[in-house]
Amino acid sequence: MLPSNCALAGPRTLVSTLSRPARFALPTRSPLPAARLLVRCRSPSTIRLASTEVPGASTPKSNTKRSFPVRAFRFTVFTAGSVVFGLTTVLGVILAHDALTYRESHLDGVPTSPLALHPLPGGPKGLPVVSHWVEGEEDERAKRISQKERLVVVGGGWGAVSLLSTLDPEKYQVTVVAPSNFYLFTPLLPSATVGTVEPRSLVEPLRKVIARHHGHYVQGRAVDAVMGEAMPADRGGSDRLLEVEVINDHTALEGPGEQGAGGKRVYIPYDRLVVAVGSVTNTHGVPGLEHCFHLKTVQDARRIRSHIMDNLEIASLPTTTQEERDRLLSFVISGGGPTGVETAAEIYDMLNEDVLDYFPKLLRASAKVHLIQSREHILNTYSEAISQFAEKKFARDEVDIITSARVKRVEKDKVVYTKKDPETGKVTEYEVPSGFTLWSTGIAMSPFTKRLTELLPNQSHLKALQIDSHLRVKGAPLGSVYALGDASTIDTRLIDYLYEFVDKCDTDHDGKLTMPEFQALANEVGRKFPIASKHFQKLQDMFEKYDVDHDGKLNLNEIASMFLETQNKMTALPATAQVASQQGAYLARKLNKLARKRDAGEDMNPHDAEDVFDVDETYYKPFKYTNLGSLAYVGNAAAFDLPLPEPLGSLAGGLLAMYAWRSFYLSEQVSTRTRLLLLMDYVRRGLYGRDLSRL
Amino acid sequence: MLPSNCALAGPRTLVSTLSRPARFALPTRSPLPAARLLVRCRSPSTIRLASTEVPGASTPKSNTKRSFPVRAFRFTVFTAGSVVFGLTTVLGVILAHDALTYRESHLDGVPTSPLALHPLPGGPKGLPVVSHWVEGEEDERAKRISQKERLVVVGGGWGAVSLLSTLDPEKYQVTVVAPSNFYLFTPLLPSATVGTVEPRSLVEPLRKVIARHHGHYVQGRAVDAVMGEAMPADRGGSDRLLEVEVINDHTALEGPGEQGAGGKRVYIPYDRLVVAVGSVTNTHGVPGLEHCFHLKTVQDARRIRSHIMDNLEIASLPTTTQEERDRLLSFVISGGGPTGVETAAEIYDMLNEDVLDYFPKLLRASAKVHLIQSREHILNTYSEAISQFAEKKFARDEVDIITSARVKRVEKDKVVYTKKDPETGKVTEYEVPSGFTLWSTGIAMSPFTKRLTELLPNQSHLKALQIDSHLRVKGAPLGSVYALGDASTIDTRLIDYLYEFVDKCDTDHDGKLTMPEFQALANEVGRKFPIASKHFQKLQDMFEKYDVDHDGKLNLNEIASMFLETQNKMTALPATAQVASQQGAYLARKLNKLARKRDAGEDMNPHDAEDVFDVDETYYKPFKYTNLGSLAYVGNAAAFDLPLPEPLGSLAGGLLAMYAWRSFYLSEQVSTRTRLLLLMDYVRRGLYGRDLSRL
Repeated sequence: MLPSNCALAGPRTLVSTLSRPARFALPTRSPLPAARLLVRCRSPSTIRLASTEVPGASTPKSNTKRSFPVRAFRFTVFTAGSVVFGLTTVLGVILAHDALTYRESHLDGVPTSPLALHPLPGGPKGLPVVSHWVEGEEDERAKRISQKERLVVVGGGWGAVSLLSTLDPEKYQVTVVAPSNFYLFTPLLPSATVGTVEPRSLVEPLRKVIARHHGHYVQGRAVDAVMGEAMPADRGGSDRLLEVEVINDHTALEGPGEQGAGGKRVYIPYDRLVVAVGSVTNTHGVPGLEHCFHLKTVQDARRIRSHIMDNLEIASLPTTTQEERDRLLSFVISGGGPTGVETAAEIYDMLNEDVLDYFPKLLRASAKVHLIQSREHILNTYSEAISQFAEKKFARDEVDIITSARVKRVEKDKVVYTKKDPETGKVTEYEVPSGFTLWSTGIAMSPFTKRLTELLPNQSHLKALQIDSHLRVKGAPLGSVYALGDASTIDTRLIDYLYEFVDKCDTDHDGKLTMPEFQALANEVGRKFPIASKHFQKLQDMFEKYDVDHDGKLNLNEIASMFLETQNKMTALPATAQVASQQGAYLARKLNKLARKRDAGEDMNPHDAEDVFDVDETYYKPFKYTNLGSLAYVGNAAAFDLPLPEPLGSLAGGLLAMYAWRSFYLSEQVSTRTRLLLLMDYVRRGLYGRDLSRL
Repeated sequence: MLPSNCALAGPRTLVSTLSRPARFALPTRSPLPAARLLVRCRSPSTIRLASTEVPGASTPKSNTKRSFPVRAFRFTVFTAGSVVFGLTTVLGVILAHDALTYRESHLDGVPTSPLALHPLPGGPKGLPVVSHWVEGEEDERAKRISQKERLVVVGGGWGAVSLLSTLDPEKYQVTVVAPSNFYLFTPLLPSATVGTVEPRSLVEPLRKVIARHHGHYVQGRAVDAVMGEAMPADRGGSDRLLEVEVINDHTALEGPGEQGAGGKRVYIPYDRLVVAVGSVTNTHGVPGLEHCFHLKTVQDARRIRSHIMDNLEIASLPTTTQEERDRLLSFVISGGGPTGVETAAEIYDMLNEDVLDYFPKLLRASAKVHLIQSREHILNTYSEAISQFAEKKFARDEVDIITSARVKRVEKDKVVYTKKDPETGKVTEYEVPSGFTLWSTGIAMSPFTKRLTELLPNQSHLKALQIDSHLRVKGAPLGSVYALGDASTIDTRLIDYLYEFVDKCDTDHDGKLTMPEFQALANEVGRKFPIASKHFQKLQDMFEKYDVDHDGKLNLNEIASMFLETQNKMTALPATAQVASQQGAYLARKLNKLARKRDAGEDMNPHDAEDVFDVDETYYKPFKYTNLGSLAYVGNAAAFDLPLPEPLGSLAGGLLAMYAWRSFYLSEQVSTRTRLLLLMDYVRRGLYGRDLSRL
């Protein structure tokens, strides 16, 4: 009987709270009632428990008397009490803290180096060389850091930020060059196009990211570079210069990749340069793309949101014909990758939730979402199970999926595409009216990346900068220029290293490899090309397969053909945020290690040694990518493609999966700030729907 | 033994309930510790209380044993417990609710009147007449409401929204015409210019406001009107038409007042028209205003925020000279009213808090805020105490206040103003370099208001539409057109009603008024002109003062001179949000009353009666403004000007006043949604500062 009375405690508390908290959100509410509740619930419950606990407390009757409703009431009161009390306390603390965040400041003169105010001209083009920074002498820490090795990061995306947040402060003098002064959490851009989340919840100011490094930020675009040998000890002149076009007008601030009006140019000297500029959208040479929206920047997301709101309002006007209405509400998305699919899903959600509630129902009835995909399936980079799930979901949602279709051209009010008949191979042309066209297919090189490939030898690749497994740009002085993320692609040309490998492993120097020697070679390859290692598994079989003359040894030709066939099987890493951030973190850890070695007085200069002395190689392991899987939102449902054995690998489902999807992105946030904002956005959507204001 | 295990029972259940929501709240943090704390604190604390409270609980030793730290620890633990529990419960509830907000919809054909899809041309200009709406037949309620009297509201600001939220649904068929589809909480715009609050937290979609009326919204601008007599019973043709230019392109959407590219035009028939279009900024004919920012719309606030961020980033560039830096960081605000003062304060706050933390300190040292005011004091409409407080505060903050100065012209990079020497009267010209110039002085008529004044007789006023104390636009058919807010000004011309008043009160018809008759007249005036009543206090003295021929009676001339002198003393209501929202609420209550009368079958048509039958006059009292005081934010301090005897009336102070100021605005919000968002913004600023991203 006693236990039962306690066992009731838990569940009831839950039920009873459901009513209360809503009231609380209002700031006008005073904490007093909460206090009173506590008091009222405290003493009786104490008496009850007392009766059970305190030896010699002879009050069994009082216990039996207590009826169910009375107990229920107590627990209600207790729960409500602690909810209100809990929330008030939190608000109280926040308010107290808030009161300490206001200041008035009276700065008298800030020490600044004259060279920072008037940089001297230098370099091949005689541009001002930024040898000193205005913030370089403002305090002791700034002075100390301005003596460190200069690490210049170009770009402010995933790669750059993951590098900066893992990099050890105090070890380098960090400078970040990027056209926008914020980092953008790109994976959630599709949600921002309809206001499920606010753009502001996806951005983190770069200045806050570099603050812990006491670093410098330059609002500008890297346009060129002088990639000389290691710089002389005196900091006066350096032959490692990054040429930057600063953005000093109010109009030029569009997303990365887009070129603004040309501003002044300066040289920023570096000891190590990190290229993390990402990529730009690939037009595939389709005509009429000026009528399309892209989705790479916050500005893009905002433009799309305004445009969609416009379409809805215009479609509601009494002057709008039904034909025009149908066109305005036809949303065409070209590209069946994650971005395209998630945008389609978000638009579809908005139509069902907010449009249906607040616009004429005719609009919902007239609206249609089309998704044009060149491959046979959407989300084709994901497992088949996932892409099937997505297609089924969309089919049920009446989202029109057009697969194995190529967009031929885009016009102001329609999209023209062709479809090839699988049997006859006959190509038919179709067109779909469009009030909104999104172009989200493929990536291309940014202007700066292109320029670097021109500057450097053996940069054959057309889509990105070629880097070795240490993320070093090929052709640049060893260890001076790194590249990561979409801007880079890891070199897979085993063949280039044929002799190097063989020399190293051919212990008996007969120009041929025995099985043991081949095993050594396999290890060597695996170490230098982690992405190749999985192709060197069944060594015995390989050996026999390629030992065409069956002399029990592999000669150069045999090894060459092996390398060639293998490197064709090796696939480049996908251009995803995941790769970029892993590379960023890897590079940061390496740079930390090297800095420790440097400070420990080890010789870091590759050029004192006789033959090339590879610092990275010596002190750190090459980059190895670990696929953590990918996920996609498909309209009140989510799909996960995890690196696990099927069917575990392909998780897909409704609401629960969606919440998992959200939680994952919440945990991925770069700052608690954005995490909180994002969480609030989700709560806001749940409580009040999306904001339909056309800003 | 039993007790202990039962003491655990309650908490255990807590543990189980805690885990899920908590994990949702902060993905990284595990709730278990908190739960365990609860378990540990619950039983002992009860014992302690028991020992003190339960009669006959013989455990005095246990009490003495318990040391302060132990009790303190317990209390902490209990608090922490209920905080976590409170928060998780709330989150749990929200999550549970959230899960119910997702839907998939499959609409089949929505019933729509053909007349809505193809409106017939009509009216003097033969434009399409919107007699039916596409949403007019979608369900039973829509059908019912489309039969009601048609109330057309022009504008979506304070007046309109307070009208709509007080207006009784089901009583009128409401249509709102406004260029932007959202309501803007204007008083907090200054905070939005630096990101203390987000623009999205200040706007409420009009469609959500009119949803309860099942009303119609038209994205457009009223340009003209046909203000005929009451319309015939059949709804076919009406001679009360509002001519609207719809906004049907993607570029024309700038703030109210600004004119977009001309769109199609339609007639919207009305039974009652409410003009609440507000006002536009008054340029005072100063040259160079194209170089100024205004602060009336969200777009303005956003532009200002981007511009200020640009200035900060450009000022941080290594290519920027100190002279240029000083200019970029010189913020000039013209206009010492609340808007100007609050914007100056907000910019100053940002400089001290965020700029100082994340930008080179040199920027803070170079930055300066200038406030140019034409009068002798800032906030001159407030009590003297207030304006002195503000000036002292700004002086301490090194905000440069330039009073009794007139802006002569504005140039791209400087502001030129003149100052008159109070003694010599000599006018000197000064100039201040400017990187940002805000123009916030005075208001002017919007194009539509101007057009109406041209259409109507006796609309002499130059600044706004003249209305009577029933808010009816003078010259328009009685009770057909109302105006409120900045667009209107209540008529104070007592003299126009001289004969009417005298006739009514001159009981003995001798053309003169005796004292009792004069008292009757005073009441009559007070009833018809509530704003005049305070001038008819000491009747005896007035009577003697104006009875120049001392015949113990007031003749027409004497009364005329009295009226003239009085009406000159009467001041028009200020153009504030407070007036607009009071007028909106008043009009809504009146319209509700009239609708009830109408539905009760009373004769509402003014034109059946012999002489003009004044419905409003008969059924409702005239509008009376109650000043609730005004307030202003002056940089981590706030000032309140309340309608109370001094010194009570002029409250001013630091943080506490600021929190009061915020709480007031929080309570003023039109929706819980914006209230929550605003609260979060304040919390966000406190925890993480302002967002420095340049979007």
